[in-house]
Amino acid sequence: TLKIEMEGLYPADVTGILYEMESQEARYLINQLDTKIGAEILADLDPPERREFLKNFTSEEISRYVNLFDSDDAVDLLNEQPIRVREEVIALLEDREQARFILDLLHYDEDVAGGLMQKELVKANVNWNMNQCIEELRKQAEDVEKVYAVYVVDDHERLLGLLSLKKIVLAHKNTKVESIYDQDFIFVETYRPAEEVAELMQRYDLDAVPVVNVQGKLLGRITIDDIVDVITEQASSDTLAMAGITGDVEEDDTVWRQTQARLPWLLVGMMGGILAAKFIGFFEGDLKIVPAMAAFIPIIGSTGGNVGIQTSSIILQSLADKSGLDTGVWQRLIRMFAVALINGLIISLIVFGFNLLIGNELQLALVVSSALLSVVFLASFMGTVTPLALDKLGINPAVASGPFITTANDLIGYGVYFGLAHLLLDL
Amino acid sequence: TLKIEMEGLYPADVTGILYEMESQEARYLINQLDTKIGAEILADLDPPERREFLKNFTSEEISRYVNLFDSDDAVDLLNEQPIRVREEVIALLEDREQARFILDLLHYDEDVAGGLMQKELVKANVNWNMNQCIEELRKQAEDVEKVYAVYVVDDHERLLGLLSLKKIVLAHKNTKVESIYDQDFIFVETYRPAEEVAELMQRYDLDAVPVVNVQGKLLGRITIDDIVDVITEQASSDTLAMAGITGDVEEDDTVWRQTQARLPWLLVGMMGGILAAKFIGFFEGDLKIVPAMAAFIPIIGSTGGNVGIQTSSIILQSLADKSGLDTGVWQRLIRMFAVALINGLIISLIVFGFNLLIGNELQLALVVSSALLSVVFLASFMGTVTPLALDKLGINPAVASGPFITTANDLIGYGVYFGLAHLLLDL
Ligand SMILES: [Mg+2]
Ligand SMILES: [Mg+2]
Ligand SMILES: [Mg+2]
Ligand SMILES: [Mg+2]
Ligand SMILES: [Mg+2]
Ligand SMILES: [Mg+2]
Ligand SMILES: [Mg+2]
Ligand SMILES: [Mg+2]
Ligand SMILES: [Mg+2]
Ligand SMILES: [Mg+2]
Ligand SMILES: [Mg+2]
Ligand SMILES: [Mg+2]
Ligand SMILES: [Mg+2]
Repeated sequence: TLKIEMEGLYPADVTGILYEMESQEARYLINQLDTKIGAEILADLDPPERREFLKNFTSEEISRYVNLFDSDDAVDLLNEQPIRVREEVIALLEDREQARFILDLLHYDEDVAGGLMQKELVKANVNWNMNQCIEELRKQAEDVEKVYAVYVVDDHERLLGLLSLKKIVLAHKNTKVESIYDQDFIFVETYRPAEEVAELMQRYDLDAVPVVNVQGKLLGRITIDDIVDVITEQASSDTLAMAGITGDVEEDDTVWRQTQARLPWLLVGMMGGILAAKFIGFFEGDLKIVPAMAAFIPIIGSTGGNVGIQTSSIILQSLADKSGLDTGVWQRLIRMFAVALINGLIISLIVFGFNLLIGNELQLALVVSSALLSVVFLASFMGTVTPLALDKLGINPAVASGPFITTANDLIGYGVYFGLAHLLLDL
Repeated sequence: TLKIEMEGLYPADVTGILYEMESQEARYLINQLDTKIGAEILADLDPPERREFLKNFTSEEISRYVNLFDSDDAVDLLNEQPIRVREEVIALLEDREQARFILDLLHYDEDVAGGLMQKELVKANVNWNMNQCIEELRKQAEDVEKVYAVYVVDDHERLLGLLSLKKIVLAHKNTKVESIYDQDFIFVETYRPAEEVAELMQRYDLDAVPVVNVQGKLLGRITIDDIVDVITEQASSDTLAMAGITGDVEEDDTVWRQTQARLPWLLVGMMGGILAAKFIGFFEGDLKIVPAMAAFIPIIGSTGGNVGIQTSSIILQSLADKSGLDTGVWQRLIRMFAVALINGLIISLIVFGFNLLIGNELQLALVVSSALLSVVFLASFMGTVTPLALDKLGINPAVASGPFITTANDLIGYGVYFGLAHLLLDL
């Protein structure tokens, strides 16, 4: 039967099948399965689909599954629900420890360490011996799926260090925690931004990191699987931001949501285009005399745009890779300018040759190529300075870089082009 | 002293300091430190800097450190070295097991499972009991830093399943492996692409995944810390590809390398610009009569570019997220067109209003706005179809999408604009 087949699959694979179903079917299927498997599947669903599916569940049904969730996933699910459902589900939870865990976690922002941590962990008092540790492990075994290490605390629950499972397996039963635990460890405070936690765990190759409050009291831990999700979400939203898309849209989101995500930057681009139109309008007289000038408007715009995006992407990458050198703005600019000089010279020489080849006047060819060279420099400058400035101002540099820089470069480029033309062509 | 200070830091933090040093200084510093710490630092360095530093090391010095590396990191380091150094280092390795490990791993591509795996793991015969497992763990404890699980094999080294450390801690000493090991597990073959391994480990929340050959023999394992690095590298190179940068450049790479990485797509953009110039040249006569037409060249180009990049980014995201729906091309196109209709109508209406406001002729205003609407549609179409086609052809769709689509959209846009103008303005 379907039920047996589904229970033979990994929960992460059942999710894929659920996405193809109607909410009612999905509810029916999930309720057919073993509660534990149903819980794993619900914990694994993407938030938008999960919100949709759960509209058909009663609070009592939801609480039966949430009862078996890890506390971090429980909070994620509850945060997607209307307040009424959230309160009902918590009130209905059979496991009262789970309810306490959830109430503890609900008040953290989702993008800080507190919002990523789970309460499930194994801790040992520093005065215990291995036997007591193993006893505690046995008690928590069902609730803590992946242990990695036992956290060592003092009588006031303050985190002192950790003890890897490997050490516990190899130690003698009477060995004191005190004599073998690791005092040299990395932890984070609840308020640390998610990206910082991710950077830390990646840098030190951690499987889990304990979370403490300002008094150093152990509150929870963050596991690497959730950080992997943070990293891929961050990467995907940076890419979308570069492409001029705000918020976290996906292809199967509603048309309206996609429009909302895309229209703002299209309007910015449109404003840039209108400004450009207004600006080129001033030179209408010139265009009447040398209509061939119009033909090079596109190459000026696209070269500026391409150079700007290349430059800012390289800077963005440096900003993201904090392990890199802390190069000053001047050094960055000099290097950028060297690259700009080579690229700019090559492009303007080729275009110069093309102009002579198709029989355009020498003067026009000179104007176009010197405009191109200037545009490459200006775009390199803007592409370097804008992300650095945004970063200094505390704005995510990826958000504003793509479309903003392209639009600015377009306008600057046309300015240079028509300015030079007006001067050099004696118009 | 500096030595003591350095030894107090985490290796990952010392790397940051080394990047600011000259190669000679770096060598001196590393050689001062405890060999084990020096080895950890060398394993943690970025490849380009490491290659630079190691030019000053003798093969004998390198082998002293590589001797203590995990086998996966040893292979990474050796692959950066000239063949002569590589052979010398392997010949000089004191730990002959390490040499064997390395020779086993050297022949895998770096972007498949075999190139990511390490030989360090703990395995147990299915006929053993817990006592024997723990004995084996004790033997391997120093060489296998993070254990996660013990792999269970038969007498022919074929992988049968795994046994988590948690289970080992909690089981009775005489319990047979056979009776408690987990037969339901995920593994990969050596030839699986790195991105697939990453997707798998992320989907199933794995800390480590065993690697087998076609006969099912256990060859090694891949740990999550290395997969986190694969994921971030992939994200960064996709971003660069979108921005029209080939290869993995960084801001501190040489000017020459940066130029090489950036020039190709700039030249593609330039060719597009030259084609556009040639094309607009055909309409020089029209421009002489209605020079105001030139003013709207930029908005046509930039709107096409922006819509194209937005669209292809959303498609690229869907392609990357294989857990999503397997939507057909038609469904994608219909949704894209709905979004295009709304965005296109809003933009062309605003620009229409602007044109009337600044006193342009109704006919020109109509031409500009209908060209804009068409361009939004065409760019949506191209942005949807191009990445899908490239993906089907086995080309990384991220590599070619950005600049290619922008250039194509520019040309199509100008074609529509001047074509419509020629028809509607009776030129
Ligand atoms: Mg979670
Ligand atoms: Mg959360
Ligand atoms: Mg629980
Ligand atoms: Mg790492
Ligand atoms: Mg590492
Ligand atoms: Mg979790
Ligand atoms: Mg670097
Ligand atoms: Mg490695
Ligand atoms: Mg490797
Ligand atoms: Mg070894
Ligand atoms: Mg996962
Ligand atoms: Mg998960
Ligand atoms: Mg490794």
